[in-house]
Amino acid sequence: MKVFIIGVGLIGGSIAKDLINLEDYEIIGIDKNKLNIKYALNDGIINRSGDINEIIKADLILLTVDVESAIDLLPKILKLVNNNCLVIDFGSTKSKLCSLVSNHPKRNQFLATHPIAGKENSGPEYAINDLFKDKIQIICEVGKTRKDLFDWAKSIFNRLGMILRYMEPDENDKNMAYVSHLSHITSFMLGKTVLEIEKTKNIVDLAGSGFDSTVRLAKSSPEMWAPIFKQNKNNITKTLDDYIKNLKDFKKKLLKNEFDELKNQMKEINKLTEILNRNK
Amino acid sequence: MKVFIIGVGLIGGSIAKDLINLEDYEIIGIDKNKLNIKYALNDGIINRSGDINEIIKADLILLTVDVESAIDLLPKILKLVNNNCLVIDFGSTKSKLCSLVSNHPKRNQFLATHPIAGKENSGPEYAINDLFKDKIQIICEVGKTRKDLFDWAKSIFNRLGMILRYMEPDENDKNMAYVSHLSHITSFMLGKTVLEIEKTKNIVDLAGSGFDSTVRLAKSSPEMWAPIFKQNKNNITKTLDDYIKNLKDFKKKLLKNEFDELKNQMKEINKLTEILNRNK
Repeated sequence: MKVFIIGVGLIGGSIAKDLINLEDYEIIGIDKNKLNIKYALNDGIINRSGDINEIIKADLILLTVDVESAIDLLPKILKLVNNNCLVIDFGSTKSKLCSLVSNHPKRNQFLATHPIAGKENSGPEYAINDLFKDKIQIICEVGKTRKDLFDWAKSIFNRLGMILRYMEPDENDKNMAYVSHLSHITSFMLGKTVLEIEKTKNIVDLAGSGFDSTVRLAKSSPEMWAPIFKQNKNNITKTLDDYIKNLKDFKKKLLKNEFDELKNQMKEINKLTEILNRNK
Repeated sequence: MKVFIIGVGLIGGSIAKDLINLEDYEIIGIDKNKLNIKYALNDGIINRSGDINEIIKADLILLTVDVESAIDLLPKILKLVNNNCLVIDFGSTKSKLCSLVSNHPKRNQFLATHPIAGKENSGPEYAINDLFKDKIQIICEVGKTRKDLFDWAKSIFNRLGMILRYMEPDENDKNMAYVSHLSHITSFMLGKTVLEIEKTKNIVDLAGSGFDSTVRLAKSSPEMWAPIFKQNKNNITKTLDDYIKNLKDFKKKLLKNEFDELKNQMKEINKLTEILNRNK
Protein backbone atom coordinates (compact mmCIF):
# COMPACT_ATOMS: atom_id res chain seq x y z
CA MET A 1 0.00 0.00 0.00
CA LYS A 2 1.68 3.17 -1.17
CA VAL A 3 0.91 6.13 1.07
CA PHE A 4 2.12 9.53 -0.13
CA ILE A 5 2.33 12.28 2.44
CA ILE A 6 2.51 15.62 0.68
CA GLY A 7 3.82 18.16 3.18
CA VAL A 8 5.94 16.46 5.84
CA GLY A 9 5.51 18.97 8.64
CA LEU A 10 3.96 18.69 12.08
CA ILE A 11 0.65 17.24 10.83
CA GLY A 12 2.00 15.08 8.00
CA GLY A 13 4.92 13.90 10.14
CA SER A 14 2.68 13.01 13.07
CA ILE A 15 0.32 11.00 10.86
CA ALA A 16 3.35 9.26 9.34
CA LYS A 17 4.64 8.33 12.80
CA ASP A 18 1.34 6.68 13.65
CA LEU A 19 1.13 4.77 10.34
CA ILE A 20 4.73 3.77 9.60
CA ASN A 21 4.62 0.61 11.65
CA LEU A 22 1.70 -0.85 9.73
CA GLU A 23 3.47 -3.59 7.85
CA ASP A 24 1.71 -3.22 4.52
CA TYR A 25 2.08 0.60 4.37
CA GLU A 26 4.97 2.21 2.55
CA ILE A 27 5.17 5.85 3.65
CA ILE A 28 6.54 8.11 0.92
CA GLY A 29 7.21 11.77 1.72
CA ILE A 30 7.00 14.73 -0.67
CA ASP A 31 7.96 18.21 0.49
CA LYS A 32 9.31 21.25 -1.35
CA ASN A 33 11.48 21.86 1.69
CA LYS A 34 14.27 19.32 1.31
CA LEU A 35 15.30 19.75 4.95
CA ASN A 36 11.91 18.39 6.02
CA ILE A 37 12.47 15.29 3.88
CA LYS A 38 16.00 14.85 5.18
CA TYR A 39 14.81 15.13 8.77
CA ALA A 40 11.89 12.74 8.19
CA LEU A 41 14.19 10.16 6.58
CA ASN A 42 16.80 10.39 9.32
CA ASP A 43 14.15 10.16 11.99
CA GLY A 44 12.45 7.18 10.34
CA ILE A 45 9.15 9.03 9.94
CA ILE A 46 8.95 8.12 6.25
CA ASN A 47 10.26 5.10 4.34
CA ARG A 48 11.49 7.12 1.40
CA SER A 49 11.13 10.41 -0.44
CA GLY A 50 8.99 10.60 -3.54
CA ASP A 51 8.04 12.79 -6.45
CA ILE A 52 4.67 14.18 -7.55
CA ASN A 53 5.01 12.33 -10.87
CA GLU A 54 4.89 8.92 -9.17
CA ILE A 55 1.54 9.45 -7.56
CA ILE A 56 -0.25 7.46 -10.23
CA LYS A 57 0.99 4.50 -8.16
CA ALA A 58 -0.46 5.91 -4.94
CA ASP A 59 -3.16 4.08 -2.98
CA LEU A 60 -3.54 6.87 -0.46
CA ILE A 61 -2.51 10.50 -0.58
CA LEU A 62 -2.51 12.64 2.54
CA LEU A 63 -2.39 16.31 1.68
CA THR A 64 -0.91 18.13 4.66
CA VAL A 65 0.29 21.42 3.22
CA ASP A 66 -0.85 25.00 3.92
CA VAL A 67 -4.39 25.70 2.69
CA GLU A 68 -3.33 27.83 -0.31
CA SER A 69 -0.89 25.18 -1.53
CA ALA A 70 -3.73 22.67 -1.18
CA ILE A 71 -5.81 24.78 -3.59
CA ASP A 72 -2.96 24.64 -6.06
CA LEU A 73 -2.14 20.96 -5.59
CA LEU A 74 -5.45 19.15 -5.22
CA PRO A 75 -6.65 19.48 -8.84
CA LYS A 76 -3.21 18.42 -10.09
CA ILE A 77 -3.22 15.42 -7.75
CA LEU A 78 -6.74 14.31 -8.69
CA LYS A 79 -5.78 14.50 -12.35
CA LEU A 80 -2.80 12.19 -11.80
CA VAL A 81 -4.18 9.54 -9.45
CA ASN A 82 -5.50 6.12 -10.44
CA ASN A 83 -9.17 5.26 -10.02
CA ASN A 84 -8.81 3.60 -6.63
CA CYS A 85 -6.63 6.13 -4.90
CA LEU A 86 -8.04 7.97 -1.87
CA VAL A 87 -6.98 11.59 -1.38
CA ILE A 88 -7.51 13.25 2.03
CA ASP A 89 -6.69 16.82 2.93
CA PHE A 90 -6.23 18.10 6.51
CA GLY A 91 -6.41 21.91 6.20
CA SER A 92 -8.08 24.30 8.63
CA THR A 93 -10.35 25.94 6.01
CA LYS A 94 -12.67 23.89 3.83
CA SER A 95 -15.01 26.07 1.73
CA LYS A 96 -12.64 27.16 -1.03
CA LEU A 97 -11.11 23.71 -1.49
CA CYS A 98 -14.45 21.89 -1.53
CA SER A 99 -16.02 24.28 -4.00
CA LEU A 100 -12.93 24.16 -6.21
CA VAL A 101 -13.30 20.42 -6.79
CA SER A 102 -17.08 20.13 -6.47
CA ASN A 103 -17.49 19.20 -10.13
CA HIS A 104 -14.23 17.36 -10.56
CA PRO A 105 -14.67 13.95 -12.25
CA LYS A 106 -12.68 12.36 -9.40
CA ARG A 107 -14.45 14.27 -6.61
CA ASN A 108 -15.59 10.97 -5.09
CA GLN A 109 -11.99 9.94 -4.44
CA PHE A 110 -11.41 12.98 -2.27
CA LEU A 111 -12.25 13.47 1.41
CA ALA A 112 -12.09 16.94 3.02
CA THR A 113 -11.16 16.89 6.70
CA HIS A 114 -9.93 19.19 9.44
CA PRO A 115 -8.33 17.71 12.54
CA ILE A 116 -8.58 19.85 15.69
CA ALA A 117 -5.02 19.08 16.61
CA GLY A 118 -1.80 20.93 16.25
CA LYS A 119 0.81 22.88 18.08
CA GLU A 120 2.29 26.34 17.83
CA ASN A 121 5.45 24.73 16.46
CA SER A 122 5.74 23.50 12.92
CA GLY A 123 7.99 21.10 11.04
CA PRO A 124 8.61 17.33 11.22
CA GLU A 125 10.97 17.82 14.17
CA TYR A 126 7.89 18.49 16.31
CA ALA A 127 5.94 15.51 14.96
CA ILE A 128 4.81 13.11 17.66
CA ASN A 129 2.91 9.87 17.95
CA ASP A 130 -0.69 10.16 19.13
CA LEU A 131 -1.02 13.85 18.18
CA PHE A 132 -4.56 13.02 17.01
CA LYS A 133 -5.57 10.67 19.83
CA ASP A 134 -8.96 11.70 21.26
CA LYS A 135 -8.97 14.79 19.03
CA ILE A 136 -11.90 15.84 16.87
CA GLN A 137 -11.64 15.17 13.14
CA ILE A 138 -14.11 17.31 11.21
CA ILE A 139 -15.31 15.65 8.03
CA CYS A 140 -16.97 17.70 5.31
CA GLU A 141 -19.34 16.69 2.52
CA VAL A 142 -19.15 13.05 3.54
CA GLY A 143 -21.69 11.95 0.91
CA LYS A 144 -19.43 13.10 -1.90
CA THR A 145 -16.74 10.51 -1.18
CA ARG A 146 -17.03 6.95 -2.55
CA LYS A 147 -18.30 4.63 0.17
CA ASP A 148 -15.42 2.11 0.05
CA LEU A 149 -12.84 4.90 0.13
CA PHE A 150 -14.60 6.67 3.00
CA ASP A 151 -14.72 3.42 4.98
CA TRP A 152 -10.99 3.10 4.53
CA ALA A 153 -10.49 6.71 5.63
CA LYS A 154 -12.58 6.01 8.74
CA SER A 155 -10.42 3.01 9.61
CA ILE A 156 -7.31 5.21 9.35
CA PHE A 157 -8.84 7.93 11.55
CA ASN A 158 -9.81 5.19 13.96
CA ARG A 159 -6.21 4.00 14.10
CA LEU A 160 -5.11 7.60 14.79
CA GLY A 161 -7.63 7.65 17.67
CA MET A 162 -9.75 10.49 16.28
CA ILE A 163 -13.33 11.40 17.14
CA LEU A 164 -15.32 12.02 13.96
CA ARG A 165 -17.63 15.04 13.55
CA TYR A 166 -19.55 15.88 10.39
CA MET A 167 -19.94 19.46 9.24
CA GLU A 168 -20.47 21.43 6.04
CA PRO A 169 -17.41 23.35 4.77
CA ASP A 170 -18.85 26.82 5.45
CA GLU A 171 -19.88 25.75 8.93
CA ASN A 172 -16.32 24.57 9.65
CA ASP A 173 -14.92 27.87 8.41
CA LYS A 174 -17.36 30.00 10.42
CA ASN A 175 -16.81 28.05 13.62
CA MET A 176 -13.04 27.98 13.23
CA ALA A 177 -12.96 31.74 12.74
CA TYR A 178 -14.12 31.97 16.38
CA VAL A 179 -12.47 29.08 18.19
CA SER A 180 -9.19 28.93 16.30
CA HIS A 181 -8.39 31.71 13.85
CA LEU A 182 -9.40 34.59 16.16
CA SER A 183 -7.27 33.30 19.04
CA HIS A 184 -4.25 33.21 16.73
CA ILE A 185 -4.85 36.84 15.74
CA THR A 186 -5.43 38.03 19.33
CA SER A 187 -2.23 36.30 20.34
CA PHE A 188 -0.18 37.67 17.43
CA MET A 189 -1.46 41.22 18.09
CA LEU A 190 -0.73 40.93 21.83
CA GLY A 191 2.80 39.91 20.91
CA LYS A 192 3.07 42.86 18.49
CA THR A 193 1.80 45.37 21.07
CA VAL A 194 4.32 44.24 23.67
CA LEU A 195 7.21 44.02 21.19
CA GLU A 196 6.61 47.64 20.17
CA ILE A 197 7.35 48.69 23.77
CA GLU A 198 10.19 46.17 24.06
CA LYS A 199 12.07 48.16 21.38
CA THR A 200 12.74 50.96 23.85
CA LYS A 201 12.76 49.13 27.17
CA ASN A 202 12.95 45.52 28.33
CA ILE A 203 9.61 44.46 29.67
CA VAL A 204 9.23 40.92 28.32
CA ASP A 205 11.56 39.58 31.01
CA LEU A 206 8.96 40.75 33.55
CA ALA A 207 6.25 38.58 32.03
CA GLY A 208 4.84 35.69 34.00
CA SER A 209 3.33 32.38 32.94
CA GLY A 210 -0.04 34.01 32.19
CA PHE A 211 1.47 36.17 29.47
CA ASP A 212 3.38 33.16 28.08
CA SER A 213 0.15 31.24 27.76
CA THR A 214 -1.72 34.10 26.08
CA VAL A 215 1.00 34.70 23.46
CA ARG A 216 1.78 31.04 22.87
CA LEU A 217 0.05 31.09 19.48
CA ALA A 218 2.16 34.08 18.40
CA LYS A 219 4.88 31.50 17.75
CA SER A 220 2.79 29.96 14.96
CA SER A 221 4.04 29.63 11.41
CA PRO A 222 3.29 32.64 9.15
CA GLU A 223 3.51 30.30 6.13
CA MET A 224 0.67 28.22 7.51
CA TRP A 225 -1.44 31.07 8.89
CA ALA A 226 -1.35 33.76 6.17
CA PRO A 227 -3.12 31.33 3.77
CA ILE A 228 -5.77 30.53 6.42
CA PHE A 229 -6.42 34.24 7.00
CA LYS A 230 -6.66 34.74 3.24
CA GLN A 231 -9.16 31.94 2.66
CA ASN A 232 -11.31 32.72 5.68
CA LYS A 233 -11.13 36.49 5.33
CA ASN A 234 -14.86 37.18 5.48
CA ASN A 235 -15.58 35.07 8.55
CA ILE A 236 -12.46 36.36 10.32
CA THR A 237 -13.43 39.98 9.62
CA LYS A 238 -16.74 39.35 11.37
CA THR A 239 -15.06 37.77 14.44
CA LEU A 240 -12.54 40.63 14.57
CA ASP A 241 -15.41 43.14 14.53
CA ASP A 242 -17.08 41.32 17.44
CA TYR A 243 -13.82 41.17 19.35
CA ILE A 244 -12.85 44.82 18.79
CA LYS A 245 -16.37 45.86 19.83
CA ASN A 246 -15.97 43.97 23.11
CA LEU A 247 -12.56 45.55 23.74
CA LYS A 248 -13.93 49.04 23.07
CA ASP A 249 -16.86 48.36 25.36
CA PHE A 250 -14.45 47.18 28.07
CA LYS A 251 -12.43 50.37 27.66
CA LYS A 252 -15.58 52.51 27.83
CA LYS A 253 -16.66 50.85 31.07
CA LEU A 254 -13.14 51.31 32.44
CA LEU A 255 -13.17 55.04 31.63
CA LYS A 256 -16.64 55.42 33.15
CA ASN A 257 -15.51 53.61 36.31
CA GLU A 258 -18.12 50.89 35.88
CA PHE A 259 -16.11 48.36 37.84
CA ASP A 260 -19.07 46.45 39.22
CA GLU A 261 -20.30 45.91 35.70
CA LEU A 262 -16.83 44.77 34.61
CA LYS A 263 -16.75 42.40 37.57
CA ASN A 264 -20.13 40.91 36.61
CA GLN A 265 -18.98 40.59 33.01
CA MET A 266 -15.87 38.72 34.12
CA LYS A 267 -17.97 36.42 36.30
CA GLU A 268 -20.05 35.54 33.25
CA ILE A 269 -16.91 34.89 31.21
CA ASN A 270 -15.54 32.65 33.98
CA LYS A 271 -18.31 30.21 32.98
CA LEU A 272 -16.32 29.40 29.85
CA THR A 273 -14.11 27.32 32.13
CA GLU A 274 -17.02 25.05 32.99
CA ILE A 275 -17.80 24.55 29.31
CA LEU A 276 -14.16 23.85 28.48
CA ASN A 277 -13.81 21.42 31.40
CA ARG A 278 -17.02 19.62 30.42
CA ASN A 279 -15.39 18.78 27.12
CA LYS A 280 -12.18 17.41 28.60
CA MET B 1 7.83 35.09 65.69
CA LYS B 2 4.23 35.93 64.95
CA VAL B 3 3.52 36.07 61.22
CA PHE B 4 0.08 37.32 60.20
CA ILE B 5 -1.07 36.53 56.69
CA ILE B 6 -3.95 38.81 55.76
CA GLY B 7 -5.72 37.25 52.78
CA VAL B 8 -5.23 33.48 52.75
CA GLY B 9 -5.72 32.86 49.04
CA LEU B 10 -3.38 31.53 46.36
CA ILE B 11 -0.56 33.97 47.13
CA GLY B 12 -0.95 34.15 50.92
CA GLY B 13 -1.51 30.40 51.14
CA SER B 14 1.54 29.59 49.01
CA ILE B 15 3.79 31.87 51.10
CA ALA B 16 2.38 30.22 54.23
CA LYS B 17 3.19 26.77 52.85
CA ASP B 18 6.81 27.77 52.32
CA LEU B 19 7.18 29.35 55.77
CA ILE B 20 5.13 27.11 58.07
CA ASN B 21 7.93 24.65 58.70
CA LEU B 22 10.28 27.31 60.05
CA GLU B 23 10.26 26.34 63.72
CA ASP B 24 10.19 29.83 65.21
CA TYR B 25 7.38 31.11 62.94
CA GLU B 26 3.78 30.97 64.05
CA ILE B 27 1.58 31.49 60.97
CA ILE B 28 -1.68 33.22 61.77
CA GLY B 29 -4.30 33.61 59.03
CA ILE B 30 -6.86 36.39 58.66
CA ASP B 31 -9.44 36.31 55.89
CA LYS B 32 -12.94 37.76 55.60
CA ASN B 33 -13.88 34.56 53.79
CA LYS B 34 -14.23 32.02 56.59
CA LEU B 35 -14.09 29.13 54.14
CA ASN B 36 -10.54 30.15 53.23
CA ILE B 37 -9.55 30.04 56.90
CA LYS B 38 -11.27 26.70 57.40
CA TYR B 39 -9.50 25.23 54.39
CA ALA B 40 -6.12 26.65 55.44
CA LEU B 41 -6.50 25.23 58.96
CA ASN B 42 -7.58 21.80 57.74
CA ASP B 43 -4.76 21.71 55.22
CA GLY B 44 -2.16 22.81 57.78
CA ILE B 45 -1.25 25.92 55.80
CA ILE B 46 -1.68 28.13 58.88
CA ASN B 47 -1.18 27.40 62.57
CA ARG B 48 -4.28 29.28 63.66
CA SER B 49 -6.77 31.93 62.64
CA GLY B 50 -6.41 35.44 63.96
CA ASP B 51 -8.11 38.79 64.25
CA ILE B 52 -7.06 42.22 63.06
CA ASN B 53 -7.11 43.50 66.66
CA GLU B 54 -4.26 41.19 67.67
CA ILE B 55 -1.80 42.53 65.15
CA ILE B 56 -0.13 44.74 67.75
CA LYS B 57 1.64 41.47 68.65
CA ALA B 58 2.71 40.81 65.05
CA ASP B 59 6.38 40.63 64.07
CA LEU B 60 5.59 40.27 60.40
CA ILE B 61 2.46 41.02 58.41
CA LEU B 62 2.03 39.78 54.87
CA LEU B 63 -0.75 41.63 53.08
CA THR B 64 -2.01 39.37 50.30
CA VAL B 65 -5.46 40.75 49.51
CA ASP B 66 -6.82 42.37 46.33
CA VAL B 67 -5.25 45.76 45.61
CA GLU B 68 -8.30 47.83 46.60
CA SER B 69 -8.62 46.04 49.94
CA ALA B 70 -4.91 46.74 50.44
CA ILE B 71 -5.64 50.49 50.07
CA ASP B 72 -8.27 50.17 52.76
CA LEU B 73 -6.26 47.96 55.11
CA LEU B 74 -2.68 49.23 54.99
CA PRO B 75 -3.21 52.52 56.90
CA LYS B 76 -5.25 50.66 59.53
CA ILE B 77 -2.55 48.04 59.87
CA LEU B 78 0.29 50.55 60.14
CA LYS B 79 -1.63 52.38 62.84
CA LEU B 80 -1.97 49.21 64.92
CA VAL B 81 1.45 47.57 64.60
CA ASN B 82 4.29 47.83 67.11
CA ASN B 83 7.52 49.64 66.25
CA ASN B 84 9.42 46.57 65.10
CA CYS B 85 6.80 44.93 62.95
CA LEU B 86 7.51 44.58 59.21
CA VAL B 87 4.55 44.89 56.82
CA ILE B 88 4.90 43.62 53.24
CA ASP B 89 2.27 43.83 50.53
CA PHE B 90 2.22 41.66 47.38
CA GLY B 91 -0.25 43.40 45.04
CA SER B 92 0.07 43.79 41.27
CA THR B 93 -0.28 47.61 41.29
CA LYS B 94 1.96 49.80 43.40
CA SER B 95 1.47 53.53 42.69
CA LYS B 96 -1.71 54.19 44.60
CA LEU B 97 -0.64 52.20 47.66
CA CYS B 98 2.83 53.75 47.83
CA SER B 99 1.55 57.30 47.46
CA LEU B 100 -1.18 56.65 50.05
CA VAL B 101 1.37 55.90 52.79
CA SER B 102 4.24 58.06 51.56
CA ASN B 103 4.00 60.39 54.56
CA HIS B 104 2.85 57.84 57.09
CA PRO B 105 4.86 57.96 60.35
CA LYS B 106 5.44 54.21 60.07
CA ARG B 107 6.27 54.25 56.32
CA ASN B 108 9.71 52.79 57.10
CA GLN B 109 8.12 49.60 58.45
CA PHE B 110 6.39 48.92 55.13
CA LEU B 111 7.80 47.25 52.02
CA ALA B 112 5.91 47.38 48.71
CA THR B 113 6.44 44.33 46.48
CA HIS B 114 4.95 42.59 43.49
CA PRO B 115 5.80 38.95 42.81
CA ILE B 116 5.56 37.85 39.17
CA ALA B 117 3.92 34.62 40.17
CA GLY B 118 0.39 33.42 40.20
CA LYS B 119 -2.11 31.21 38.50
CA GLU B 120 -5.48 31.69 36.86
CA ASN B 121 -7.01 29.91 39.86
CA SER B 122 -7.51 31.59 43.20
CA GLY B 123 -8.06 30.45 46.76
CA PRO B 124 -5.96 28.52 49.30
CA GLU B 125 -6.95 25.21 47.70
CA TYR B 126 -4.63 26.09 44.82
CA ALA B 127 -1.75 27.16 47.09
CA ILE B 128 1.46 25.24 46.44
CA ASN B 129 4.98 25.08 47.77
CA ASP B 130 7.61 26.79 45.65
CA LEU B 131 5.12 29.02 43.77
CA PHE B 132 7.72 31.80 44.01
CA LYS B 133 10.85 29.76 43.30
CA ASP B 134 12.93 31.43 40.56
CA LYS B 135 10.20 34.04 40.07
CA ILE B 136 10.84 37.79 39.96
CA GLN B 137 9.93 39.79 43.03
CA ILE B 138 9.62 43.48 42.19
CA ILE B 139 10.53 45.74 45.09
CA CYS B 140 9.46 49.37 45.09
CA GLU B 141 10.87 52.39 46.93
CA VAL B 142 13.46 50.24 48.67
CA GLY B 143 15.10 53.24 50.39
CA LYS B 144 11.93 54.02 52.29
CA THR B 145 12.02 50.81 54.33
CA ARG B 146 14.13 50.57 57.53
CA LYS B 147 17.38 48.77 56.78
CA ASP B 148 17.02 46.00 59.41
CA LEU B 149 13.44 45.28 58.32
CA PHE B 150 14.37 45.23 54.64
CA ASP B 151 17.23 42.80 55.38
CA TRP B 152 14.74 40.51 57.06
CA ALA B 153 12.36 40.81 54.09
CA LYS B 154 15.24 39.88 51.77
CA SER B 155 16.00 36.78 53.81
CA ILE B 156 12.34 35.73 53.52
CA PHE B 157 12.28 36.30 49.74
CA ASN B 158 15.51 34.35 49.58
CA ARG B 159 13.87 31.44 51.38
CA LEU B 160 10.97 31.59 48.90
CA GLY B 161 13.56 31.41 46.09
CA MET B 162 12.70 34.76 44.53
CA ILE B 163 14.84 36.90 42.22
CA LEU B 164 14.79 40.53 43.38
CA ARG B 165 14.25 43.43 40.96
CA TYR B 166 14.02 47.07 41.98
CA MET B 167 11.56 49.40 40.30
CA GLU B 168 9.63 52.58 41.04
CA PRO B 169 5.86 52.11 41.61
CA ASP B 170 4.78 53.91 38.43
CA GLU B 171 7.29 51.89 36.42
CA ASN B 172 5.85 48.66 37.80
CA ASP B 173 2.32 49.76 36.93
CA LYS B 174 3.23 50.86 33.39
CA ASN B 175 5.13 47.66 32.65
CA MET B 176 2.48 45.41 34.14
CA ALA B 177 -0.21 47.08 32.04
CA TYR B 178 1.57 45.54 29.02
CA VAL B 179 2.92 42.20 30.18
CA SER B 180 0.20 41.21 32.60
CA HIS B 181 -2.96 43.32 32.72
CA LEU B 182 -3.43 43.54 28.94
CA SER B 183 -3.14 39.78 28.46
CA HIS B 184 -5.87 39.26 31.06
CA ILE B 185 -8.17 41.66 29.18
CA THR B 186 -7.41 40.14 25.75
CA SER B 187 -8.16 36.72 27.19
CA PHE B 188 -11.38 37.79 28.93
CA MET B 189 -12.62 39.50 25.76
CA LEU B 190 -11.77 36.48 23.60
CA GLY B 191 -13.81 34.38 26.03
CA LYS B 192 -16.67 36.88 25.85
CA THR B 193 -16.65 36.95 22.04
CA VAL B 194 -16.82 33.18 21.78
CA LEU B 195 -19.43 32.81 24.55
CA GLU B 196 -21.72 35.22 22.68
CA ILE B 197 -21.79 32.77 19.75
CA GLU B 198 -21.98 29.78 22.09
CA LYS B 199 -25.41 31.02 23.22
CA THR B 200 -26.93 30.01 19.91
CA LYS B 201 -24.68 27.14 18.83
CA ASN B 202 -22.08 24.91 20.46
CA ILE B 203 -18.69 25.85 19.17
CA VAL B 204 -16.52 25.67 22.30
CA ASP B 205 -16.36 21.89 22.06
CA LEU B 206 -14.58 22.37 18.73
CA ALA B 207 -11.76 24.34 20.34
CA GLY B 208 -8.28 22.91 20.42
CA SER B 209 -5.41 23.37 22.85
CA GLY B 210 -4.41 26.68 21.23
CA PHE B 211 -7.73 28.27 22.17
CA ASP B 212 -7.49 26.79 25.69
CA SER B 213 -4.12 28.41 26.15
CA THR B 214 -5.26 31.81 24.85
CA VAL B 215 -8.33 31.97 27.12
CA ARG B 216 -6.64 30.47 30.17
CA LEU B 217 -6.55 33.85 31.92
CA ALA B 218 -10.31 34.29 31.38
CA LYS B 219 -10.66 31.96 34.36
CA SER B 220 -9.09 34.59 36.62
CA SER B 221 -10.86 35.98 39.67
CA PRO B 222 -13.03 39.06 39.02
CA GLU B 223 -12.59 40.03 42.70
CA MET B 224 -8.85 40.22 42.22
CA TRP B 225 -8.85 41.76 38.74
CA ALA B 226 -11.53 44.48 38.87
CA PRO B 227 -9.48 46.31 41.56
CA ILE B 228 -6.31 46.03 39.44
CA PHE B 229 -8.12 47.44 36.39
CA LYS B 230 -9.47 50.26 38.57
CA GLN B 231 -6.10 51.24 40.01
CA ASN B 232 -4.20 50.97 36.76
CA LYS B 233 -6.91 52.48 34.59
CA ASN B 234 -4.76 55.10 32.86
CA ASN B 235 -1.92 52.77 31.91
CA ILE B 236 -4.35 50.04 30.83
CA THR B 237 -6.29 52.48 28.63
CA LYS B 238 -3.06 53.28 26.81
CA THR B 239 -2.20 49.58 26.25
CA LEU B 240 -5.76 48.90 25.08
CA ASP B 241 -5.47 51.74 22.57
CA ASP B 242 -2.22 50.27 21.24
CA TYR B 243 -3.75 46.81 21.04
CA ILE B 244 -6.98 47.90 19.34
CA LYS B 245 -4.93 49.92 16.85
CA ASN B 246 -2.94 46.81 15.95
CA LEU B 247 -6.10 44.74 15.54
CA LYS B 248 -7.68 47.37 13.30
CA ASP B 249 -4.51 47.55 11.25
CA PHE B 250 -4.54 43.75 10.91
CA LYS B 251 -8.15 43.88 9.74
CA LYS B 252 -7.34 46.64 7.24
CA LYS B 253 -4.48 44.60 5.77
CA LEU B 254 -6.77 41.57 5.61
CA LEU B 255 -9.45 43.51 3.72
CA LYS B 256 -6.85 44.94 1.34
CA ASN B 257 -5.45 41.45 0.70
CA GLU B 258 -1.99 42.44 1.97
CA PHE B 259 -1.10 38.90 2.91
CA ASP B 260 2.63 39.24 2.28
CA GLU B 261 2.70 42.15 4.67
CA LEU B 262 0.74 40.15 7.24
CA LYS B 263 3.17 37.30 6.80
CA ASN B 264 6.16 39.59 7.37
CA GLN B 265 4.46 41.08 10.41
CA MET B 266 3.91 37.60 11.86
CA LYS B 267 7.56 36.70 11.20
CA GLU B 268 8.60 39.75 13.23
CA ILE B 269 6.23 38.77 16.04
CA ASN B 270 7.64 35.23 16.03
CA LYS B 271 10.83 36.81 17.43
CA LEU B 272 9.02 37.23 20.74
CA THR B 273 9.60 33.51 21.22
CA GLU B 274 13.37 34.02 21.21
CA ILE B 275 13.05 36.76 23.83
CA LEU B 276 10.76 34.64 25.99
CA ASN B 277 13.05 31.60 25.69
CA ARG B 278 16.11 33.69 26.54
CA ASN B 279 14.51 34.48 29.87
CA LYS B 280 13.72 30.87 30.77
